[in-house]
Amino acid sequence: MPVDPPEYEHFEPFQFGGVLPTPREFSESASVILPIPFDRTTSYMPGTRNGPRELLLASAQVELWDEEVGVDVHPRGLLTLPEMDLSGLSLAEAMETIGSTTGELMDQGKFVLTVGGEHSITSPIVGAAAARHAGLSVLQVDAHADLRNAYLGEPHSHACAMRRTLDYAPLVQVGIRNISEEEAKILPTLRTQIFYDWNMRDQPDWIDRAVAALSDDVYITIDLDGLEPGLMPAVGTPEPGGLSWRELTTLLRRTFERRNVVACDVVELCPIPGMVSPNFIAARLVYKLLTYKFGLTRQRP
Amino acid sequence: MPVDPPEYEHFEPFQFGGVLPTPREFSESASVILPIPFDRTTSYMPGTRNGPRELLLASAQVELWDEEVGVDVHPRGLLTLPEMDLSGLSLAEAMETIGSTTGELMDQGKFVLTVGGEHSITSPIVGAAAARHAGLSVLQVDAHADLRNAYLGEPHSHACAMRRTLDYAPLVQVGIRNISEEEAKILPTLRTQIFYDWNMRDQPDWIDRAVAALSDDVYITIDLDGLEPGLMPAVGTPEPGGLSWRELTTLLRRTFERRNVVACDVVELCPIPGMVSPNFIAARLVYKLLTYKFGLTRQRP
Amino acid sequence: MPVDPPEYEHFEPFQFGGVLPTPREFSESASVILPIPFDRTTSYMPGTRNGPRELLLASAQVELWDEEVGVDVHPRGLLTLPEMDLSGLSLAEAMETIGSTTGELMDQGKFVLTVGGEHSITSPIVGAAAARHAGLSVLQVDAHADLRNAYLGEPHSHACAMRRTLDYAPLVQVGIRNISEEEAKILPTLRTQIFYDWNMRDQPDWIDRAVAALSDDVYITIDLDGLEPGLMPAVGTPEPGGLSWRELTTLLRRTFERRNVVACDVVELCPIPGMVSPNFIAARLVYKLLTYKFGLTRQRP
Amino acid sequence: MPVDPPEYEHFEPFQFGGVLPTPREFSESASVILPIPFDRTTSYMPGTRNGPRELLLASAQVELWDEEVGVDVHPRGLLTLPEMDLSGLSLAEAMETIGSTTGELMDQGKFVLTVGGEHSITSPIVGAAAARHAGLSVLQVDAHADLRNAYLGEPHSHACAMRRTLDYAPLVQVGIRNISEEEAKILPTLRTQIFYDWNMRDQPDWIDRAVAALSDDVYITIDLDGLEPGLMPAVGTPEPGGLSWRELTTLLRRTFERRNVVACDVVELCPIPGMVSPNFIAARLVYKLLTYKFGLTRQRP
Amino acid sequence: MPVDPPEYEHFEPFQFGGVLPTPREFSESASVILPIPFDRTTSYMPGTRNGPRELLLASAQVELWDEEVGVDVHPRGLLTLPEMDLSGLSLAEAMETIGSTTGELMDQGKFVLTVGGEHSITSPIVGAAAARHAGLSVLQVDAHADLRNAYLGEPHSHACAMRRTLDYAPLVQVGIRNISEEEAKILPTLRTQIFYDWNMRDQPDWIDRAVAALSDDVYITIDLDGLEPGLMPAVGTPEPGGLSWRELTTLLRRTFERRNVVACDVVELCPIPGMVSPNFIAARLVYKLLTYKFGLTRQRP
Amino acid sequence: MPVDPPEYEHFEPFQFGGVLPTPREFSESASVILPIPFDRTTSYMPGTRNGPRELLLASAQVELWDEEVGVDVHPRGLLTLPEMDLSGLSLAEAMETIGSTTGELMDQGKFVLTVGGEHSITSPIVGAAAARHAGLSVLQVDAHADLRNAYLGEPHSHACAMRRTLDYAPLVQVGIRNISEEEAKILPTLRTQIFYDWNMRDQPDWIDRAVAALSDDVYITIDLDGLEPGLMPAVGTPEPGGLSWRELTTLLRRTFERRNVVACDVVELCPIPGMVSPNFIAARLVYKLLTYKFGLTRQRP
Repeated sequence: MPVDPPEYEHFEPFQFGGVLPTPREFSESASVILPIPFDRTTSYMPGTRNGPRELLLASAQVELWDEEVGVDVHPRGLLTLPEMDLSGLSLAEAMETIGSTTGELMDQGKFVLTVGGEHSITSPIVGAAAARHAGLSVLQVDAHADLRNAYLGEPHSHACAMRRTLDYAPLVQVGIRNISEEEAKILPTLRTQIFYDWNMRDQPDWIDRAVAALSDDVYITIDLDGLEPGLMPAVGTPEPGGLSWRELTTLLRRTFERRNVVACDVVELCPIPGMVSPNFIAARLVYKLLTYKFGLTRQRP
Repeated sequence: MPVDPPEYEHFEPFQFGGVLPTPREFSESASVILPIPFDRTTSYMPGTRNGPRELLLASAQVELWDEEVGVDVHPRGLLTLPEMDLSGLSLAEAMETIGSTTGELMDQGKFVLTVGGEHSITSPIVGAAAARHAGLSVLQVDAHADLRNAYLGEPHSHACAMRRTLDYAPLVQVGIRNISEEEAKILPTLRTQIFYDWNMRDQPDWIDRAVAALSDDVYITIDLDGLEPGLMPAVGTPEPGGLSWRELTTLLRRTFERRNVVACDVVELCPIPGMVSPNFIAARLVYKLLTYKFGLTRQRP
Repeated sequence: MPVDPPEYEHFEPFQFGGVLPTPREFSESASVILPIPFDRTTSYMPGTRNGPRELLLASAQVELWDEEVGVDVHPRGLLTLPEMDLSGLSLAEAMETIGSTTGELMDQGKFVLTVGGEHSITSPIVGAAAARHAGLSVLQVDAHADLRNAYLGEPHSHACAMRRTLDYAPLVQVGIRNISEEEAKILPTLRTQIFYDWNMRDQPDWIDRAVAALSDDVYITIDLDGLEPGLMPAVGTPEPGGLSWRELTTLLRRTFERRNVVACDVVELCPIPGMVSPNFIAARLVYKLLTYKFGLTRQRP
Repeated sequence: MPVDPPEYEHFEPFQFGGVLPTPREFSESASVILPIPFDRTTSYMPGTRNGPRELLLASAQVELWDEEVGVDVHPRGLLTLPEMDLSGLSLAEAMETIGSTTGELMDQGKFVLTVGGEHSITSPIVGAAAARHAGLSVLQVDAHADLRNAYLGEPHSHACAMRRTLDYAPLVQVGIRNISEEEAKILPTLRTQIFYDWNMRDQPDWIDRAVAALSDDVYITIDLDGLEPGLMPAVGTPEPGGLSWRELTTLLRRTFERRNVVACDVVELCPIPGMVSPNFIAARLVYKLLTYKFGLTRQRP
Repeated sequence: MPVDPPEYEHFEPFQFGGVLPTPREFSESASVILPIPFDRTTSYMPGTRNGPRELLLASAQVELWDEEVGVDVHPRGLLTLPEMDLSGLSLAEAMETIGSTTGELMDQGKFVLTVGGEHSITSPIVGAAAARHAGLSVLQVDAHADLRNAYLGEPHSHACAMRRTLDYAPLVQVGIRNISEEEAKILPTLRTQIFYDWNMRDQPDWIDRAVAALSDDVYITIDLDGLEPGLMPAVGTPEPGGLSWRELTTLLRRTFERRNVVACDVVELCPIPGMVSPNFIAARLVYKLLTYKFGLTRQRP
Repeated sequence: MPVDPPEYEHFEPFQFGGVLPTPREFSESASVILPIPFDRTTSYMPGTRNGPRELLLASAQVELWDEEVGVDVHPRGLLTLPEMDLSGLSLAEAMETIGSTTGELMDQGKFVLTVGGEHSITSPIVGAAAARHAGLSVLQVDAHADLRNAYLGEPHSHACAMRRTLDYAPLVQVGIRNISEEEAKILPTLRTQIFYDWNMRDQPDWIDRAVAALSDDVYITIDLDGLEPGLMPAVGTPEPGGLSWRELTTLLRRTFERRNVVACDVVELCPIPGMVSPNFIAARLVYKLLTYKFGLTRQRP
């Protein structure tokens, strides 16, 4: 009966929310926040490695009571684990370690919310979740399809994050506005349904349709570049278009109301020095996910 | 017959609009812009102390003619007073000084537009206005309810700004998306009507309803974090959601058309080095308020 | 039979898109991207001189396949020419050089897409285009009318850019939210139709009406401050309001579908150090223009 | 027998050195680090309020072993207390609170190292120290004499910090390169000896002479603008000239070797976003002071 | 009997020193500070156009009393003229305008201190001074020799600034650590004496030798990149090495003591957003020049 | 007879010096510049991954003629290879790849100058050099000894860079001012001679002594934090103290004059957005190394 978190080398963790009024030990926590500052991208702007730290620093300002749901879920327990240090490993080894660590947490009954770091961390977590939830599907909010089979020869690149994820579960991809010809051509053969940013709003019920396309057990991955770049400029490869805060929260709320969300991640925060706004918004998003998870009553059909 | 502004120690003021084509002396000015770079917050990002200076520097680029109303109101007079220096005072003394100074300006017939600085400056100004306009109500645009009774033991904290204001006038609060459990619980007993950001737009006539909730004499306080953080990232505690420029200007225009606005403030600009956009937007907002005040004809019911 | 680009002193050019998979020589290129880092403004924030360089650096991350049109147009050829160095010239001489250079490129059959630099570069290019396309009209997306006859005594100032352009072609101006009294008064005598930001959306068909106001041959000039400043803060004089990405792309798509666009420019990018998002967005806009030009089939009425 | 630190409202403190290998409780600590983010200056650049936090964040990278003295002093105990929040108080009240709090710490036998915040915090601490060490003198490293009697009408302004300190103890001022005519004229009547930056090095034994001018019990105050601005640009009012790191550490080492240093402060760190170098240097200076205090054997004459 | 400054279009000027205690009208001022934000360089970092404005903003913090010379020279009059706007002119026309304007000021008996802007502005001012002081020589502090005959085809480029100056007066160049092969080869034929940064200190009397190489009437031009880049990073093309503040002030003091300095300039400040230190240092240098000019007694040989 | 560079996946390289007047093919180049943007540190500030790119961008402004040696060495050939992408590999695999690639270049007769990236890249290059030059020694300029045996459990961490290097060659370490107790204790058993920053200058001939401690064949590794942090703030863990530019260049020049330098590296540039000075200085250092290598005649004893 394991009640301790998985062990690994680490610095002392920052805690989400700073000093919480009702802190919980690991064994009492319904959820854990796991920072994985993994960042091996060769993109134009590095910096996602700092994402978890800045998100956690900003989180001390997040109001614990949610005015929309009318609840403060933090007494359910949202312990922040130490950052994972994967610097010595190959990409393949790092993927395996992420998968086994998050799987162990799931076995201990935790709702795992991972904070990246780059998007490549998603596939092993989905692998762990799919092994525990048969028929799992994935809701992805993102600007990029990330469905390349390999990028610069590397199958575990962040540009291939969702292609790897497809090995474990089918996808519903929302907000997509960057996709390569290679990906577009292979699409019909893949287990994915794409809601393109340029035309998804032409159908007013697009949010309901996206949720309906998901199976009962759902993993949610949010690449922050899925949001409008005005709201969220602190990402490595911003794209014009994207979801508004209202669209994103509506999509998430309905998903939590109608499906069983088993784990989620928020990735690709790439902080801009001197500009705290994106860090606050990412922290608020993390807490919104936990609020929906523990504060909403699931609507049975 | 006082025709001089109140006296206090100061540096030479910057003037709103830079060098105006039709400058007016204090005695000829229908309005005065009063910068109060008051900043004692313990929030994550300080810097509102620089807000008035950067707003005024940016204001030199604001076009004096307003294409919406079709008027240039600056010949009515918009003299910028020197920054108030309250550094030596306790919070309670500072509040008293702000109240007496703005009251004196009101007695001289000026439309007082204060530029903050942090939100705690609002309550004494409302106090001064309420003493001169029985039945005054307050329109607050803000992300935060600011209704705590005390914060870290301090009743004059910016987190309590509107609770103090309630001593003088009832509130209509718009765009709220951050409120604590303590505030939410005490709400039913307070003289305030809240339009929450997450659901206020569900009623298409929400702007008309907000204006209708105001009494005839109105004070307007705009915390810049009430705007969308994409548009206005330069605030101490940004929150996703918020009013668009169009929503804010529509709300303000209708308020000026239907009510007697007696004074207003724009607070919490916290400039980001190297990014002038928020400073320009705040300056434009200040001038929009003056344009609506002096350029619109009030619609009698 | 000239097949070489015009000659001028220059540094080595960056190429749009970085190292393209299907590069084309000048003679094979259907279009050329011409960077003109011209910047003599006395505005508050300089820096448009860096605009073309940062746009081109960011362009290496732009996906070449466009998911909206379903095409990759780059094999049609989009050669980037070297930056023009006009530093030694007077304003009048610089205007003449820009006009003759772009005219020469048009004579060689190129679709010329100029990247600024400040807005004053537009009028000589329109002059060159009008000399080759009788009855040309101009679609301008901008926050500022730029219709002053002179600014600080200078008729070629960026604040007069479109007044000079009127010498060559009539205008349709979209998104305008900054205009001086002088400009507003002279408007009725000018060959321009303005869609003001504050009320253009009151007519749901405003985009169709704007396109309908254009003649068959169209030049498009996009001042980046025409976009929402949240999305595009990296401009010299930001203004609240403005077009969303969706509004802008819809307007552009319909213009390309219904008119013959003969050349275009994207001007006034003023990069913010440490914030790459606006540079990416500007680069994506450039490629969107080329995609619409070469990827859409023109709809004959 | 008090073994608890003084009580005041606070957030959870950051600890100097991050997670120390040999942490000590308050009762076991030979020294305490007291952050006072006091900042009421009206100077050009605010931001000293962030100084303590950034210094403490950077301190986690400071090597605990000192290669010069050959010792790791941290097991003697260097507990970091929470930040003092003085925001509600008048200047005079704040001074009194600082004096009583630091005095209480001294009574508990602690070596008090205060981290500012602006320089005005020094005089009450010197007052507390002088009350416990008759004949105390002060070593001040600074660019500014800070000997004005009042500044903008305020006797407790940071520009008067050392004039107030003179009420409690005589001064030796090193590195001075900014002094007003008023201060220069009154100098002969004050208990201070100034080593001007422009000529102090003309005498090769200037460091020995500065130390010799101190009484046996010494308080050290280091305004970071006393250092070269190349090394330490993150101050509110930088001045060219100033001490090199080698000059400063030599001066400090000899003072600790030859005198009894009873307390000290490091003030006026004003962090620059995106530039961590000054924060590291300030943190290293704090640890150097503690290393000299607890690692050196005092040389008896 | 002209007592008015030359006329040109301008915005309202900032004043050096902010609001001076003893302001002087133009006719009473012994010196004038002339900002020329001229910036047409194609170098890597633009931004010298902002240099004069930021220097003047920072100058309000400069102490008017100089502790080295023991004097406050500002009552002699240091009026700041408005920025010159040369944006419409060709390089050759701009040079001519600068020459005639500064010449007119010299004819009115003013000590002219120009603040750049890029280095190309120096040669016309030297031309004006040489026309009024036969036998004039120039002291140049700089990292770059700037002796190219043309750069990218342009003879008035900042990279040719001192080659053009040689047409009017011989040079003594100090701190040089960047020179092209072309310049090095032509050196023996030019009227210049170079003190290279890499070896000038090998002769301990190098400062005396530099001064001795000057004729009786001297013009001083200081390119801020002549200073150490640690102290002065805010320049377009920084170079390691360079003069310390002490070396520069010693060189300047001896020049003013032994020669008749007729005018001077400080150029190439290229402000870094968020970092005020270089702006303060440049402002202090400007005031040091004025202090030496009006506060020192010239030593007759 | 291989005349091609080693092959690996890459983007298109930037070239040192931009567009060189006398470019050389790989086969003609006496030296190659190899960028390795390797960055897996968990230090406070990431960003060395951007170091090579920013150094190369800045290098276009470096003057090719060196005024100290009186030579332009670039016609000997200084081809810049593409950045190595090691993102998919484990640390151990990455080390092996770096070693084999640089070894191959050495076998082709190239002088290899590597640009980092973090310091961990040094040991495999030294391994490659030592395999080809028996009796090799290493000159290290650095603030940190980097002699830990492991850091957070990882033997290939940058904090262990020189401990790994000791497997291949003895060290002379200069400028050291950060060393842990563990390292200090083990020192007597290691093949290293340390020149501590705090006391090395006490012996005026310290530079000669450092060079004398080197064997005939020398590898030079320069961690940029070995320089003064005022000059070089753009490093991950700055330390006060450090070498001046003059000290560093003197040390390097004498090493090249008296020893056979077989290869070298410049590592740990961590660019600061908006501040180009450190990037220029690092680029100038790279070229200084090449100038000394190919421009100096070695002095035989």
